[in-house]
Amino acid sequence: MSETVFLNGEFIAREKAYISPEDRGFYFADGVYEVIRCFKGSLFSYEEHIQRLKRSLSETRIKFRDIKSLDSVCKKIISKNNLEGKYADIYIQITRGVHRRMHRFPVEEISPTVYIYAYERLPSVNEMKRGVKVITRNDIRWLRCDIKSVSLLPNTLKFQEAHDENARECIFIRDGVITEASHSNVLGIKTGVVFTHPDSNLILSGITKKVVFRICNDLGIYVKESPIREEEISEFDELFITGTGNDIMPVVQLNDIVINDGVPGTITRQIQREYFRITYKKLGGEKKLWF
Amino acid sequence: MSETVFLNGEFIAREKAYISPEDRGFYFADGVYEVIRCFKGSLFSYEEHIQRLKRSLSETRIKFRDIKSLDSVCKKIISKNNLEGKYADIYIQITRGVHRRMHRFPVEEISPTVYIYAYERLPSVNEMKRGVKVITRNDIRWLRCDIKSVSLLPNTLKFQEAHDENARECIFIRDGVITEASHSNVLGIKTGVVFTHPDSNLILSGITKKVVFRICNDLGIYVKESPIREEEISEFDELFITGTGNDIMPVVQLNDIVINDGVPGTITRQIQREYFRITYKKLGGEKKLWF
Repeated sequence: MSETVFLNGEFIAREKAYISPEDRGFYFADGVYEVIRCFKGSLFSYEEHIQRLKRSLSETRIKFRDIKSLDSVCKKIISKNNLEGKYADIYIQITRGVHRRMHRFPVEEISPTVYIYAYERLPSVNEMKRGVKVITRNDIRWLRCDIKSVSLLPNTLKFQEAHDENARECIFIRDGVITEASHSNVLGIKTGVVFTHPDSNLILSGITKKVVFRICNDLGIYVKESPIREEEISEFDELFITGTGNDIMPVVQLNDIVINDGVPGTITRQIQREYFRITYKKLGGEKKLWF
Repeated sequence: MSETVFLNGEFIAREKAYISPEDRGFYFADGVYEVIRCFKGSLFSYEEHIQRLKRSLSETRIKFRDIKSLDSVCKKIISKNNLEGKYADIYIQITRGVHRRMHRFPVEEISPTVYIYAYERLPSVNEMKRGVKVITRNDIRWLRCDIKSVSLLPNTLKFQEAHDENARECIFIRDGVITEASHSNVLGIKTGVVFTHPDSNLILSGITKKVVFRICNDLGIYVKESPIREEEISEFDELFITGTGNDIMPVVQLNDIVINDGVPGTITRQIQREYFRITYKKLGGEKKLWF
């Protein structure tokens, strides 16, 4: 059966979805996006995603007034693609709209381009159990990584370098500290304390990361929003990445450094179990814990 | 008459030109571009633009094999739009192509998206004579500005701030020095010497700037590729920006600093005249010097 996508107010077949090459998203990466996890019909942290989307729109001065309509579109895109009983991701992209190419924003009001689709995505259970390898690269991105924009060329180039080295993610280092990864946040554990880069212009304020903060609070694990210095990485007992696409993913190797003898750490597994309980188990209806 | 554009091998009417929202240019700003000036049918510095395009493609690992075909496409896009007798710009954008969204490059070989169009653009003679105002902002862009990519959100956001303040350009300051502007290079003159940021990962290697270097060499004006420090700006006798879209544009005000009593400087005008001689006059067939 053909996939249905949402484009500028209409639900249409994927193969009929076309945009103008004059879309400012295509000319200038002048757009923002979100990816929302859907656990068998339940949108996870929907409000947090929408709040972040609103912030990205506001910081880029894209005027999109129908933000309230997205809730209904997200639900419909799930049902129209028969994804209610599945683990799915919903992708939402909003650009400034279509206009003859010029750097400045169009003077006349143009309609933002709104593009939404959903797809089944199974959790990476095996990798979550075994842990993954990551690499590090210099953080070459812009200085407004707090905006979830489609200006993602550096992310794709660096992620590809990770993929070339059979690694799951590329962790960025700026001024000697870990900022985040190409599409995940990075957290490390040393003597029982979780360290991660504080929210700033240098990282995206991760929604899964915030869920981890709440889990840590419940479990009595202390979180310190303080950056991990590159030269300290080998002193860390555990390392993991978080994100809508990675859930809670243990890192067992970083470049040539083996972390925790190459197995996911105790606290990481504890956090995974709690995350599983409030997401896959609770919302997905899974009976058996994976961890 | 309808405008003709070139899209993926075909010359088609603008209103029939559509791309997929799954184009990696739209999802990830995973593409590069060039803008080539055309003086009444003569493509200016075509080889330099093509060499830079090849470098951008190579640095982003986009495999585009038909680079030799662009020459003929550029000429046809001019003639098909009746621009042979006019001053026109040719815009060329090449993205990695269309694929289901994923950060890494597609494993299977996909065809790059090639989009080319041309439009009449008159030179800004009055502004070139009178000079323009610019503003400065922190350079928030990524660290590979040597790649002419469509990852231009920071450029558009900052250019808009310039436009909001009735300024012609936004000059970027990084670590206390002028790098370049949102879509121009920046050159300053102090005691007869031209200063500008050296080519590096922080700026685009401007083609018009290189033409200015040659002009300076011919005129016996010394060029020092050394960055202008922010705190030294008021000590500069002259300031100008260069680029395909700006030609040689004198800057007479930077934020609140009035340069050279608010009129284009002598050396800037000398460079403008020479630039005019080898471009508009020679290639455009203009008889009378503007400067």
